[in-house]
Amino acid sequence: MPRTFQGKIRDAQDRSDSALCVGLDPRSDRLPSACRRAAKPFLAFCQQVVDATADLVCAFKPQYACFAATGAFDELRTLIAYIHENHPDVPVILDAKRGDIGDVSALYAKEVFEVFDADAATVNPYLGWDAVEPFTRVPGRGAIVLCHTSNPGSPWLQEFPEGAPVYLRVAERAAKEDAGNLALVVGATFPEQLAAVRAKAPDVPFLVPGVGAQSGDLEAVFANGLAADGSGLVVSASRSVIFAGRGTNWIDGVATAATVLRDDMRRARDAAIAAR
Amino acid sequence: MPRTFQGKIRDAQDRSDSALCVGLDPRSDRLPSACRRAAKPFLAFCQQVVDATADLVCAFKPQYACFAATGAFDELRTLIAYIHENHPDVPVILDAKRGDIGDVSALYAKEVFEVFDADAATVNPYLGWDAVEPFTRVPGRGAIVLCHTSNPGSPWLQEFPEGAPVYLRVAERAAKEDAGNLALVVGATFPEQLAAVRAKAPDVPFLVPGVGAQSGDLEAVFANGLAADGSGLVVSASRSVIFAGRGTNWIDGVATAATVLRDDMRRARDAAIAAR
Repeated sequence: MPRTFQGKIRDAQDRSDSALCVGLDPRSDRLPSACRRAAKPFLAFCQQVVDATADLVCAFKPQYACFAATGAFDELRTLIAYIHENHPDVPVILDAKRGDIGDVSALYAKEVFEVFDADAATVNPYLGWDAVEPFTRVPGRGAIVLCHTSNPGSPWLQEFPEGAPVYLRVAERAAKEDAGNLALVVGATFPEQLAAVRAKAPDVPFLVPGVGAQSGDLEAVFANGLAADGSGLVVSASRSVIFAGRGTNWIDGVATAATVLRDDMRRARDAAIAAR
Repeated sequence: MPRTFQGKIRDAQDRSDSALCVGLDPRSDRLPSACRRAAKPFLAFCQQVVDATADLVCAFKPQYACFAATGAFDELRTLIAYIHENHPDVPVILDAKRGDIGDVSALYAKEVFEVFDADAATVNPYLGWDAVEPFTRVPGRGAIVLCHTSNPGSPWLQEFPEGAPVYLRVAERAAKEDAGNLALVVGATFPEQLAAVRAKAPDVPFLVPGVGAQSGDLEAVFANGLAADGSGLVVSASRSVIFAGRGTNWIDGVATAATVLRDDMRRARDAAIAAR
């Protein structure tokens, strides 16, 4: 039987002993000068980041918007193919925030899984579960559904109404629909809500953004977010890792930042398990 | 002072006396055979649809997913440039359902307004208003925010909770933030909810999908959705218009379907105004 998307993530975590997901969010104005001069600057930059961190991570998460903002669709496609070819054990999550009425969502699933060949995509549940479903029916692939996002404006809709908020409705639905092909986005910047989502969805993996530049607290993330078996967390950092280097040896700074974060996550996980 | 996005729509409606927006949703398996053999099949098909219907519409709405599902990004870009060049009075709404945390949403706004040069995009409010805002600050461009969508699964999140549903929270916010640069997506398949949104957002234009293939009722849409001044509705139809033709003269069927719908909409509008 082929592995599920959750199975891929578990295998990658077992191999690397890492909860770290490196977000590939290239920005023209922050690239090292050598990459800026390359024919395909985003690709040149991300390939080096990928090679330097593949052993330290359980997933890569390219940010669709970064590539789309300059029309660099081919660079995104080539990058994902490069990861599969050179680091076949590392799943690729395309952070694309897709979601539309059912038959249109099916076209987006085609974009994500066929055109870009990602293992999973982030999916927006506003339109309803028919928007999510097309991303869940391809064997080995998955949908990572927005639940409680890390941005300051998220409570306005997601924590509405008080008492029975939308984000917990999404968490309950994911727990009910889960067949090894789902995960939830829960931001590190809202640790109490993270615990509430874990209570509603005990076994669903979380993709947790917001630890690096957005400064969420790792200890709280692991204390509140781990599943009963000590797994269940994929914690992503983007800018704080990929732009950590300076000068010609910039890539060493990237590897160091990723190593430090991976180790911090191991410690936070072990502390959370010990405190039970 | 440059026109706002709403001003562009109003001007296009005054010129055409039409509420019809033709959705450009090409699908490989439904193209006329002559288009299928073209080097750029989606482009060849859509250019003909655009030329045959430009006088009958107040907007065109290319569906991002249709192009993305086959990686036809260049065809989408060329199509929008073609509309601006040949039909400069017809605004282009890119149906892309974008939305992310603020600085990432700003990259999506760059994709929509710079890479694809659309006048507006559909935007998903789940992440909060910081996801919408980047689409509202470019002069002359606009954000069309999902409010109550036309699909059967939409009530699960959008009508939750009973009494003070999410979709009316979105409508109220849009009414408050509107500066000529906003519209709301409200599906024709939910006519009572359309009236409720109009009550909360008296002056915000609506983009109304769901009349053709999804068979919403035009009379109810105009009776419940018109603004006080008799404007405020952009009603979109895609498959029921663009795939209406057969054989070598397929484009005549497209023009006829668009004309019939435009006329039906005029009648429905006039009846709604007369019934006040």
